[in-house]
Amino acid sequence: MGGCKDIDETTDFKPKFDQNGLITCVVSDYKTHQVLMVAYMNEQALRLSLQTGEAHYWSRSRQEIWHKGATSGNTQIIKSIQIDCDQDCLLMAVEMPVRDNGHIAACHTGRKSCFYRDLALDKNGDITLKLQH
Amino acid sequence: MGGCKDIDETTDFKPKFDQNGLITCVVSDYKTHQVLMVAYMNEQALRLSLQTGEAHYWSRSRQEIWHKGATSGNTQIIKSIQIDCDQDCLLMAVEMPVRDNGHIAACHTGRKSCFYRDLALDKNGDITLKLQH
Repeated sequence: MGGCKDIDETTDFKPKFDQNGLITCVVSDYKTHQVLMVAYMNEQALRLSLQTGEAHYWSRSRQEIWHKGATSGNTQIIKSIQIDCDQDCLLMAVEMPVRDNGHIAACHTGRKSCFYRDLALDKNGDITLKLQH
Repeated sequence: MGGCKDIDETTDFKPKFDQNGLITCVVSDYKTHQVLMVAYMNEQALRLSLQTGEAHYWSRSRQEIWHKGATSGNTQIIKSIQIDCDQDCLLMAVEMPVRDNGHIAACHTGRKSCFYRDLALDKNGDITLKLQH
């Protein structure tokens, strides 16, 4: 068909990588939809993820490709990847191995999700955190 | 008590805003956990969100505070906000109004979620998108 299509309806893949060549990737549990973590991909990490079916990210701290779980065993099998309306964010649904203790751990702290602290306003109007569990 | 606590266990709120003063905010449906959108908050947007109980973001395109739904009616009532292990990302669970057509619309395209296109590799190894539905 051709012609111009708005970025939010096109099926052309036109990812907006940021000034560091990265795109935000929200990672969710493919069964429960729970958000597990947020990481970043560059073009190579995205291609490796699609080609291998396992999550690869760009480690901003180590400045290198990060094959998630390569050392910890907490790999992420990719079930689907979606891109958002303005093509500057990815959502990836993954399956993770259940460890010996019965848990799934996407977070380096051993928790299933990196999001385990709730924001709350205290009496003084200051923002504090509450650990879940 | 007291003393130094690692960033991933502390209950001190020490958000890492980026060089533009923004923090990424993943927005999910509080019932189904479906990821609806990803937006950005500055300190003022976060405070307004906590004080009013309705989602406020920083619009990067308009460079102003964005009270989600103020014009469209698609407001977001905040049920919870979590911060991740390294305090550089928020996860916000929200309730949204069901519109006359029975739908919920977090996306400006009228869809429930901004993530409605799947990535796929075509026969040539190129990445293409497939619209859902």
